Amino acid sequence: MKLNCDLGESYGAWKMGLDEAVMPHIDMANIACGFHGGDSDVLAYTLALAKQHTVTIGAHPSYPDKQGFGRRSMALTPQELTNCLHYQIAAIEGMAKVQGLALSYVKPHGALYNDMMTDETILTTVMQAIASYPSPLKLMLLATANAKSHQQLAKKYHLTLILEAFADRQYTDDGLLVSRKVAGSVHDKPALISQVKQLLATGCVTTQSGKKLPLHADSLCVHGDNAAGIILIQEIKALCQT
Amino acid sequence: MKLNCDLGESYGAWKMGLDEAVMPHIDMANIACGFHGGDSDVLAYTLALAKQHTVTIGAHPSYPDKQGFGRRSMALTPQELTNCLHYQIAAIEGMAKVQGLALSYVKPHGALYNDMMTDETILTTVMQAIASYPSPLKLMLLATANAKSHQQLAKKYHLTLILEAFADRQYTDDGLLVSRKVAGSVHDKPALISQVKQLLATGCVTTQSGKKLPLHADSLCVHGDNAAGIILIQEIKALCQT
Amino acid sequence: MKLNCDLGESYGAWKMGLDEAVMPHIDMANIACGFHGGDSDVLAYTLALAKQHTVTIGAHPSYPDKQGFGRRSMALTPQELTNCLHYQIAAIEGMAKVQGLALSYVKPHGALYNDMMTDETILTTVMQAIASYPSPLKLMLLATANAKSHQQLAKKYHLTLILEAFADRQYTDDGLLVSRKVAGSVHDKPALISQVKQLLATGCVTTQSGKKLPLHADSLCVHGDNAAGIILIQEIKALCQT
Amino acid sequence: MKLNCDLGESYGAWKMGLDEAVMPHIDMANIACGFHGGDSDVLAYTLALAKQHTVTIGAHPSYPDKQGFGRRSMALTPQELTNCLHYQIAAIEGMAKVQGLALSYVKPHGALYNDMMTDETILTTVMQAIASYPSPLKLMLLATANAKSHQQLAKKYHLTLILEAFADRQYTDDGLLVSRKVAGSVHDKPALISQVKQLLATGCVTTQSGKKLPLHADSLCVHGDNAAGIILIQEIKALCQT
Repeated sequence: MKLNCDLGESYGAWKMGLDEAVMPHIDMANIACGFHGGDSDVLAYTLALAKQHTVTIGAHPSYPDKQGFGRRSMALTPQELTNCLHYQIAAIEGMAKVQGLALSYVKPHGALYNDMMTDETILTTVMQAIASYPSPLKLMLLATANAKSHQQLAKKYHLTLILEAFADRQYTDDGLLVSRKVAGSVHDKPALISQVKQLLATGCVTTQSGKKLPLHADSLCVHGDNAAGIILIQEIKALCQT
Repeated sequence: MKLNCDLGESYGAWKMGLDEAVMPHIDMANIACGFHGGDSDVLAYTLALAKQHTVTIGAHPSYPDKQGFGRRSMALTPQELTNCLHYQIAAIEGMAKVQGLALSYVKPHGALYNDMMTDETILTTVMQAIASYPSPLKLMLLATANAKSHQQLAKKYHLTLILEAFADRQYTDDGLLVSRKVAGSVHDKPALISQVKQLLATGCVTTQSGKKLPLHADSLCVHGDNAAGIILIQEIKALCQT
Repeated sequence: MKLNCDLGESYGAWKMGLDEAVMPHIDMANIACGFHGGDSDVLAYTLALAKQHTVTIGAHPSYPDKQGFGRRSMALTPQELTNCLHYQIAAIEGMAKVQGLALSYVKPHGALYNDMMTDETILTTVMQAIASYPSPLKLMLLATANAKSHQQLAKKYHLTLILEAFADRQYTDDGLLVSRKVAGSVHDKPALISQVKQLLATGCVTTQSGKKLPLHADSLCVHGDNAAGIILIQEIKALCQT
Repeated sequence: MKLNCDLGESYGAWKMGLDEAVMPHIDMANIACGFHGGDSDVLAYTLALAKQHTVTIGAHPSYPDKQGFGRRSMALTPQELTNCLHYQIAAIEGMAKVQGLALSYVKPHGALYNDMMTDETILTTVMQAIASYPSPLKLMLLATANAKSHQQLAKKYHLTLILEAFADRQYTDDGLLVSRKVAGSVHDKPALISQVKQLLATGCVTTQSGKKLPLHADSLCVHGDNAAGIILIQEIKALCQT
């Protein structure tokens, strides 16, 4: 089970995330491309950090909305979304190339990620955009109850999927994440550890309604916002390695 | 003598330049990368246009200043400028790759272009940035009386230069462009045609002070802002082909 | 019947609209505030133009989306939308004050305008935002079949409405505008002139389905994008004055 | 001796400064206006905080450069700079008015502040911009050895100056701040406390070269970036009140 984390989300003078502390403990870095977070300096720095720790790198593209940190849905046309993705993927791929690194996958960010998981038109546009990009890139998306149909759609575009699960978030019966606005949707530490153990041991999570939902996950998403998060990442890593 | 033109400088709903009318008549398109003009949609469109007319493509990166159209000097550190260039070059290179095109050269835009021609620290940073980018890209810069020292500097970084001259601008004795703010600095049509003829026939331009200045130029910069400009491009092209 | 027009939508080096040609013929200028178009220079220039022609000025605020020209819906919270409106209204009001002008009304732009007309939560937020702004500002919105309920809502917030009709757009039976994507939704000149005459003579428009819909309108929205538009504005003005 | 502090410099999801912890201890809040930091939400929040603690509010306008946090000089024309200042002052003044607050002064930020202190053309433009804004606003600038000539210039524009000194920065013999890039330019705590005591007791600072320089200061600039800074602010406040 690989650990992935969103990184490179600082912007200009504004810092976000303990990237230096996270990088040694993760397998895959989802790196912001400058549309919700990140800028050319942050990108260069984060890529160097990934290189130093031999972490696999993915593009973490977003709707173009810095003030909203890519968390607000925007009504882009499929063509606009495609170009918006190509631009961001290209920017990080080229900057990675400068450091001798190859881009491995794409994980959409924030509202775009959520929209892609609930609106098949958007998921299709995302898949087509990645498939039409000439480098062989995988798509990271949420492992849900619909994973099979996502796999079928991906096959159509000759795309490899990376299915990710969340350690800290409560699930609906459909395998979607319960909105952060709902009380109890973000697990405390014991519930989080318990969810990771259950997933590793049984390949299931217990949903909001108490149902056991099978979820095949290739990767676990972790967060490095603060010191407690860094400790948690190390504990999750230890669980994954036993 | 190749003709080059700045293109792809529209932004969102704002149009700039008659790109469709210019593209059939030029050899090299300097395409904005999104920092002074251009956006992901404009880039995709302009690259498709260049492909259709088999025009060589160059990145036209800028200081990050959309409101100022990259025309205002900004005090970037060498590291900031390098990352800023890498990001823009990467973005256009990847989007070109989507359309099966290869990026050929880099021509800095606006204030960055002017600063590079008058401040050797900035020129060195630009050269190092292009040299450290892993694709083999040439640098387009102004053919001046200092061309020889520019060539020597470029050699140090294993860079090939493309020297460009301007059809419509008056020159100083150093082979720099007289500021647009100076009366007479932008030629009317007869003076422009005369300057092109002189350059093609003798490899010289007549400077502001009346001196004949030898300028080796690989390319002529033309402008496609309006219908008169398009006609002029065709006339210049005809002169170059005779 | 007052004529209103969207103005001040240029941005930096990019021009949009024939503002100088439009201003002499209109009564009310909806001036962009910098979030979809306009910037501090454009605002100062447009306000000076309005002053010269004694045109009433309104704020034309937008979702924060320059690349999308405010035409893409964005999921802002009511609090975010309120602050976003206050900031834009404040910016133009203060810059108007510099020129001795007073701001008179607010007309939301693009996707925000459309969203406000179809989503009462958003309309309520817009009304509350204007009502909580300490200067006495009116709200310009679309004259629809729901004008009465809009008036009731406005009364609750002690707001005065300015109801506007469109000369060039086809109407649904609800008095909303038929989407620009629908063929025939934008009238040609004869249909436009006919719609203006009908509105002035009978207070009705003929909808898409052929129904006669009564619409009380205080103002007509006109466009000054090109030379033909300027002529049309003058013809519409002549019709209004007879 | 009043304490002033730069606040409201968070942006979107990015936090900067411990504004809640600083506000109770200061007299004057220099609030970012959205061009280097701050946005409409941050402005509304920071103004509410200032209101709660009855802190005098000032506009803290900047060059338009979010990525560079306003710390990079930009070559704006006087007209561009004037409009840029008016827009930002207007935005914060109107948003302050929404909360029943009046704007009291303007303190330029970052590179604009430094440029204004070293380039009289820019200082003159700043003074004219504030003088031409219709509300009675003071200008906060650095108390230097040139204070007298600054006062004379201000008098010409009927402007009141607020002269500020820095607790934590070493001074040149001209009363300018030694660049942060110079070792020893930022005082450690004992040197800082000592400089505050000297300034309060004698109206002088000891410069880089060891010279005693008289500086009349109306206000001291303090920083609330971290917990240690908050403690320091309280200690400086205590010194000022004894």
